[in-house]
Amino acid sequence: MREVFQQELSEVQDRLVKIATEATETMELATEAFLNSDVALADKALEKADANEAHALELDELVIRVLATQGPVAGDLRILVSALRMSASLERMGGLAGHIAAISRFRYPGSAIPDVVRPVFEKMSELDIALGRRCVEVLKNTSLDEAAQIAEADDEVDRLHKQVFDIVLADDWKENAIFTVDVTLASRYFERFADHVVDISDKVRYLNTGDWREN
Amino acid sequence: MREVFQQELSEVQDRLVKIATEATETMELATEAFLNSDVALADKALEKADANEAHALELDELVIRVLATQGPVAGDLRILVSALRMSASLERMGGLAGHIAAISRFRYPGSAIPDVVRPVFEKMSELDIALGRRCVEVLKNTSLDEAAQIAEADDEVDRLHKQVFDIVLADDWKENAIFTVDVTLASRYFERFADHVVDISDKVRYLNTGDWREN
Repeated sequence: MREVFQQELSEVQDRLVKIATEATETMELATEAFLNSDVALADKALEKADANEAHALELDELVIRVLATQGPVAGDLRILVSALRMSASLERMGGLAGHIAAISRFRYPGSAIPDVVRPVFEKMSELDIALGRRCVEVLKNTSLDEAAQIAEADDEVDRLHKQVFDIVLADDWKENAIFTVDVTLASRYFERFADHVVDISDKVRYLNTGDWREN
Repeated sequence: MREVFQQELSEVQDRLVKIATEATETMELATEAFLNSDVALADKALEKADANEAHALELDELVIRVLATQGPVAGDLRILVSALRMSASLERMGGLAGHIAAISRFRYPGSAIPDVVRPVFEKMSELDIALGRRCVEVLKNTSLDEAAQIAEADDEVDRLHKQVFDIVLADDWKENAIFTVDVTLASRYFERFADHVVDISDKVRYLNTGDWREN
């Protein structure tokens, strides 16, 4: 019984890693679509976001099945409850990437990004993708403590998010309202994506690191 | 043992009702602050959003304790897992209301809303508050099936959200970028608040209605 349970916990962890990888890939596609007005990539990102959502829901079902059949307590129970929460965060991450893809799709063949904010979005999307990859690593190797680097990257994303507003609200911002709306929403989506990575990394740390199977 | 468990499930339900009430009150305060540039109410809304977050986390701890001590299966397990998800939605609803309050606080003593979009925001906030109240009712009396009315109100919020963009993106929109940013974000927050009510109502329905204690 205990051995089956350990296998099930491993399966939950493997799936979290896969879903985190998928959410990060969705952000990679979305970012590429957004920065280069590539509608084919935007469609791919939207498809991947849908698949990601489905996989997160499947994981939830698996977790509920394990809860029902194993009646876990203490650390094991916390792992499973945390897995449900992390799955919700990962699903949102894919969804936010999908929103970014949708903006670029909506503006196609034009670009959603005026030149003056392009460098900020390039940096912000780079940080989000790097955060997504760190999230995968932390879920894969739960003893890895990347909390400090993740918090630092998230602070930088917050700073860039504010910088977008500084640019948009400056006197010399002459873009029309379409750009203002797109840029405001996209910046918000990038910022929320990073927040979810912080939440996940905090949860993994809270589970007291170490291999989950020994928790 | 069974009797204790029933009491615990009732307690979970009672707390969900309380947190939903609190999230709705937060939106009432935030809306009032936002529409009337009332900074004192904005502060109250932000305080309530913080309290709401704390209460949601306390509920999560209670649910985990019940899961650990009762090892529930089948319908009971689904109720508890759903309670965790609903608690996350309710916490976000309070947070979104807090964001709306923060916008009005940030623009004080000016208003965040140009006259041309004011009627749309009045209607949207009215719908959000009504949705929050329906959410409370559905959690209180889980056999109540308000799904159709909730979906209808949510569709209307989505329509108003699009209308905000139509106004902002029309040729005669002459407001500066500050207004465009505020209006874009506020509209998004109102729209997400309504989405969460739909999620909660769907979950309650999924739990197959009827009194939870008889599930």
